[in-house]
Amino acid sequence: MAPVGSKRGVLERLDAGEVVIGDGGFVFALEKRGYVKAGPWTPEAAAEHPEAVRQLHREFLRAGSNVMQTFTFYASDDKLENRGNKLTFTGQQINEAACDLAREVANEGDALVAGGVSQTPSYLSCKSEDEVKKIFKKQLDVFIKKNVDFLIAEYFEHVEEAEWAVQVLKATGKPVAATLCIGPEGDMHGVTPGECAVRLVKAGADIVGVNCHFDPMTCVKTVAMMKAGVEKAGLKAHYMTQPLAYHTPDCSCQGFIDLPEFPFALEPRILTRWEMQQYAREAYKAGIRYIGGCCGFEPYHIRAVAEELATERGTLPEASQKHGMWGSGLEMHTKPWVRARARRDYWEKLKPASGRPLCPSMSSPDGWGVTKGHAELMQQKEATTAEQLRPLFEKADAKH
Amino acid sequence: MAPVGSKRGVLERLDAGEVVIGDGGFVFALEKRGYVKAGPWTPEAAAEHPEAVRQLHREFLRAGSNVMQTFTFYASDDKLENRGNKLTFTGQQINEAACDLAREVANEGDALVAGGVSQTPSYLSCKSEDEVKKIFKKQLDVFIKKNVDFLIAEYFEHVEEAEWAVQVLKATGKPVAATLCIGPEGDMHGVTPGECAVRLVKAGADIVGVNCHFDPMTCVKTVAMMKAGVEKAGLKAHYMTQPLAYHTPDCSCQGFIDLPEFPFALEPRILTRWEMQQYAREAYKAGIRYIGGCCGFEPYHIRAVAEELATERGTLPEASQKHGMWGSGLEMHTKPWVRARARRDYWEKLKPASGRPLCPSMSSPDGWGVTKGHAELMQQKEATTAEQLRPLFEKADAKH
Amino acid sequence: MAPVGSKRGVLERLDAGEVVIGDGGFVFALEKRGYVKAGPWTPEAAAEHPEAVRQLHREFLRAGSNVMQTFTFYASDDKLENRGNKLTFTGQQINEAACDLAREVANEGDALVAGGVSQTPSYLSCKSEDEVKKIFKKQLDVFIKKNVDFLIAEYFEHVEEAEWAVQVLKATGKPVAATLCIGPEGDMHGVTPGECAVRLVKAGADIVGVNCHFDPMTCVKTVAMMKAGVEKAGLKAHYMTQPLAYHTPDCSCQGFIDLPEFPFALEPRILTRWEMQQYAREAYKAGIRYIGGCCGFEPYHIRAVAEELATERGTLPEASQKHGMWGSGLEMHTKPWVRARARRDYWEKLKPASGRPLCPSMSSPDGWGVTKGHAELMQQKEATTAEQLRPLFEKADAKH
Amino acid sequence: MAPVGSKRGVLERLDAGEVVIGDGGFVFALEKRGYVKAGPWTPEAAAEHPEAVRQLHREFLRAGSNVMQTFTFYASDDKLENRGNKLTFTGQQINEAACDLAREVANEGDALVAGGVSQTPSYLSCKSEDEVKKIFKKQLDVFIKKNVDFLIAEYFEHVEEAEWAVQVLKATGKPVAATLCIGPEGDMHGVTPGECAVRLVKAGADIVGVNCHFDPMTCVKTVAMMKAGVEKAGLKAHYMTQPLAYHTPDCSCQGFIDLPEFPFALEPRILTRWEMQQYAREAYKAGIRYIGGCCGFEPYHIRAVAEELATERGTLPEASQKHGMWGSGLEMHTKPWVRARARRDYWEKLKPASGRPLCPSMSSPDGWGVTKGHAELMQQKEATTAEQLRPLFEKADAKH
Repeated sequence: MAPVGSKRGVLERLDAGEVVIGDGGFVFALEKRGYVKAGPWTPEAAAEHPEAVRQLHREFLRAGSNVMQTFTFYASDDKLENRGNKLTFTGQQINEAACDLAREVANEGDALVAGGVSQTPSYLSCKSEDEVKKIFKKQLDVFIKKNVDFLIAEYFEHVEEAEWAVQVLKATGKPVAATLCIGPEGDMHGVTPGECAVRLVKAGADIVGVNCHFDPMTCVKTVAMMKAGVEKAGLKAHYMTQPLAYHTPDCSCQGFIDLPEFPFALEPRILTRWEMQQYAREAYKAGIRYIGGCCGFEPYHIRAVAEELATERGTLPEASQKHGMWGSGLEMHTKPWVRARARRDYWEKLKPASGRPLCPSMSSPDGWGVTKGHAELMQQKEATTAEQLRPLFEKADAKH
Repeated sequence: MAPVGSKRGVLERLDAGEVVIGDGGFVFALEKRGYVKAGPWTPEAAAEHPEAVRQLHREFLRAGSNVMQTFTFYASDDKLENRGNKLTFTGQQINEAACDLAREVANEGDALVAGGVSQTPSYLSCKSEDEVKKIFKKQLDVFIKKNVDFLIAEYFEHVEEAEWAVQVLKATGKPVAATLCIGPEGDMHGVTPGECAVRLVKAGADIVGVNCHFDPMTCVKTVAMMKAGVEKAGLKAHYMTQPLAYHTPDCSCQGFIDLPEFPFALEPRILTRWEMQQYAREAYKAGIRYIGGCCGFEPYHIRAVAEELATERGTLPEASQKHGMWGSGLEMHTKPWVRARARRDYWEKLKPASGRPLCPSMSSPDGWGVTKGHAELMQQKEATTAEQLRPLFEKADAKH
Repeated sequence: MAPVGSKRGVLERLDAGEVVIGDGGFVFALEKRGYVKAGPWTPEAAAEHPEAVRQLHREFLRAGSNVMQTFTFYASDDKLENRGNKLTFTGQQINEAACDLAREVANEGDALVAGGVSQTPSYLSCKSEDEVKKIFKKQLDVFIKKNVDFLIAEYFEHVEEAEWAVQVLKATGKPVAATLCIGPEGDMHGVTPGECAVRLVKAGADIVGVNCHFDPMTCVKTVAMMKAGVEKAGLKAHYMTQPLAYHTPDCSCQGFIDLPEFPFALEPRILTRWEMQQYAREAYKAGIRYIGGCCGFEPYHIRAVAEELATERGTLPEASQKHGMWGSGLEMHTKPWVRARARRDYWEKLKPASGRPLCPSMSSPDGWGVTKGHAELMQQKEATTAEQLRPLFEKADAKH
Repeated sequence: MAPVGSKRGVLERLDAGEVVIGDGGFVFALEKRGYVKAGPWTPEAAAEHPEAVRQLHREFLRAGSNVMQTFTFYASDDKLENRGNKLTFTGQQINEAACDLAREVANEGDALVAGGVSQTPSYLSCKSEDEVKKIFKKQLDVFIKKNVDFLIAEYFEHVEEAEWAVQVLKATGKPVAATLCIGPEGDMHGVTPGECAVRLVKAGADIVGVNCHFDPMTCVKTVAMMKAGVEKAGLKAHYMTQPLAYHTPDCSCQGFIDLPEFPFALEPRILTRWEMQQYAREAYKAGIRYIGGCCGFEPYHIRAVAEELATERGTLPEASQKHGMWGSGLEMHTKPWVRARARRDYWEKLKPASGRPLCPSMSSPDGWGVTKGHAELMQQKEATTAEQLRPLFEKADAKH
């Protein structure tokens, strides 16, 4: 095992043209395992149930991840206490515990630690640039103290807030990646992917791209637009995708949040491992070299990315010891018609059925057409009251 | 924490009319986490990666499971070495490690340990009753040494083999549960569910039912047929279901094995938590009191069963601290149109889209129409060769 | 053109093992053309717009039909005046006009004229056998006066009423065919298809089978059950299917009436011509020799039946001059990728998309579980009032 | 009945803000009735089977059409003889017969006669402007001789050819409508809908819009783009849509021709009458006043347009005597649960199932990416040979 600090950094790897495999989204994976609450989506499990977080890190490491992202999503103080959420740990405790877990598991293999910040309720509630930057700074202090290897500003719906985050992170001298949660239509104020990317690079990001909100192919398409924008502007950057593991052909600009199925009925949209291999290939072809995942990704999805790019990376992940490429493990199945599926062309061509004949294949996304600046988006520390919910229920019912 | 042995046994609970919640299927859950190989589906992880198995036990315990099944599925020596599978642990080591892990976690809460045996390649290959019973006996010796609380004979396609297993298990004096992997059409030789159940009860099973192969509602329907058969015969038993977490409306008698999507493209069929609550309710209404899951179940699925039956059980599981009933956690979401989904009627009525407009909603199952006794079903220790695979590929292609 | 009366009769043909091709359902086809009102579904167009009825007869004749059924569906006096329906023609005028049109077009080709009676509101309203038989007798008087070639009792949900009809028709000495609108579950009182068929044969039917209510493959399956029943009883008969041109995999015993889409949103269920060829082949294989259609059939559907059985019949229909077998007409298309579809295997394998990603593939049929004898099914001459509709709307809404 | 010539002209009506309802597509409707051959799609039925064409005109008239389009689609000499098509009538005979039939039925009601020309194989085969214009001129001579009320240049994939047609038609002094078969992506050479419309207006068209190739909502969207273009250019025109009656969400720029289901498996895509009412409303809202249909339209679809706009037009069509608005005819149905569907909100909300659980909801369109100028698109008088078909089959198979 390499001693801490002796590993090649993220930019060193990307500059050399290597593939860096990210991990998957922890909030969704740990929600299914019983450690994260859907709604607030806060990462107190890092302090509360470290064994669960450590195990998930380990599974992604085994699956081929080169990055252990600290489980600090939404771990800013204003988000931890939003709308009645109550925690027994402080933001600092959570952030520190998350750093320690990421480092512990990173040291078990060839992985770096990335400290992550994400969008804040404060920005949505129209707080000032100073106030918002102070929030990022607070998380950052922990990352520096814990000496993470690089930093990620991720899950921003508005490029302006992401620029602020990048500016704060950049001041540390560590490499900075920045990913928006946008699709081809651009950010919530209509800034195109190309322009968003240019602004992020100018703000100091070394790596730009998208994460969350859209399915893999849509994210690859969006990053390709970012890349075209950066190149057209005569700038340079590395590119990154960390998409959903859910098919989202029916999403509009706000992504899967707007789907009626979000967040408790997304199951039928989960990608298969074979669809993930196709994603890895397309991302690679598009010139993207930091390839990871977000909500919905399980370890086997990351393993599929690593298996697709095994030749390019020169290695298979440890977890592939428990996986036959393209279904070859089925050669050991007891039933002959299942052994007949032990081949690539079978799985590549298969169009999997939903088993849900009473359900449609696409949904009409909710679209309230509001974003930062609209009264309905102001956040509050107090729990949402029944009086506040009633008009929301009525508005929603009137739309359907 | 109750000292070992001080807990009320499974029959004590069922006799008192209580609900016993099972766990989910470990081979599928651990395959997604990178510790089990699809194809052989063997449980060497119990010895190889105990931390991963322990964590999964813990998640089910937190989710409400009252039973920790030893991770000994297919852990008979003839299966561990079938068709070229090679392991660095003996069957005995795996079975012992699995017992220790189940006991360790069971002791952390209100759960019993159940030792499980399942169908053997030897039966499929037409070995004698004596030979098959010897295999069960070997696993059983470990269960007795480790003093499990009760025994489960599960995943049998032929009632005859299940009877043999029950007879072996019954001799120990411990309570015995027996579940076939059949649907309403009955076992692979056409024995009806009602008759199967009668035969299992007569062989000595205290609890009878089904596991795996079919979706929850189909399993409830099948167990209802079993119950009717047992009652008509003037016998008594307790009833149990441990279904798939996959929708299988298109399956024929062999269940999801025959679906073209098995086992690598079943994602669109995964049940939501709300569909699981409906399953728990229907199972309860049908008089089934041992309610668990099998392949595809994740901890949140078991939690949904526990939440649906919270009133009947008088308690909510620990993991419900991270879950608002019927989506109420969404009251804390930042977006108002997502807060508008924080209610039961929204999730109960939703027909989730697949996000897969190029895919059908049902498949035509493979149906080679062979079972025990047919040459194509003879098993072998050696790896399947390319020469053996070729005719299988051709036969499969000719069917599509 | 053969002179009237010189043609070989329907039994002569069937006894010789020949295929007799029926026509399609006139009420649905003429509803789309603007001449029949959905709801009452009465055939006054025969008198009101003879040119439209004549043209439809002609199209079916060109498509290969050997039978022109008089357009007398629901032309019994009690149905013509049911629930506020008002007509400017008497039942006798309509029945006579229908006979004349059928005869006129039959004389233009190799077709026979069949006079048809169908189930009555009187039976549903629990009138006596005498009263119901009087209604059939009244229509029959016209058929005898107009000297139709044979008689059909069709669209009966209750075998008892069909027996009464057959008894009345049989008294004329003309050949009698009888088709129920039932599926594999049997008639509305649960009499199995096999038993229904035996009762119809004993009542005097020469030809038995099913029409309407279910899709072609379900109808073939049902008639196969009828045939098995008749043969088991040591009786003899000829067999007949006139199914819907709609896919109905989701129907329960009452058929497509119960589908939420009935009758104004059935479009996505319409069978293609290739699916019709498959139907014709399966019907033929099942030993059915009178093969026609019902609601949803357009002339090209009947042509597809005739084309599939061209070898067996030794002839192609006239309308095939305007149709290349298996898409060969596309060889003349201007676009090369459309010419590439000019072949059988292309169309046989195609799984046509619905173009409706927001719609499911199956529906939950309405099932009020009532039939003859239930108060809700009593008929009335007066229009349904708003007061009568309100509870129906509420009951329906409560079910969804 | 108004004497010929006494009717108000099409521009008079549109200038007054009135709605003009078009008819439906004759080639598809008559193909299903057995009078047109799919592939060549030529209109010889006008001369060969005038009774069938007359009847279809009459049905559209009864349904509310204000325009009887002469059945002269593809009736140019170069198309009539393309790729081995053989006819027993000359182009002139067909065109004359079509004019007579349209006039005969137009005189039975409030309808005008429109003479129509469409795109030519000659243009696709790169013939000169003069040669192409000569073809239009030849059809036009008949229209003038027969004194049609106005002219339509329809079904053009390339705006250049449509301009040529408009120039020829305009010279007659009669009102000219011009519709391209394009979608929002513009014509086959990428000219945007806005620019296409401007060019057509400048060429002399009084009415511009689209017909065929896309579903109603897509066509409305495209015409809205045309309208915006015309208005931005400071020009004036009237607007027109005659879309498919098929849902085409999956089409690319060439429209439904590219769908794998074209032309023999489009059934599941057929619009319901309620979807047609929605189309009529949206078209009206978009400022379109000439509202008709194309392939797939049956008389009941046009009636739905007329019913939706009954208030605006001040009249209901004759065929509405056989149709209760919004399903009210079902009040007369014998079954109470069908009477429960006699209301608008039921039909407006219904998402009709396809009844096809093995079929997807969308297709991947063929896309060979060729248009005028590409060798594969050269036309020929001789039949396509087997040698010519083989490479097409192979190319198609390689794409799937």
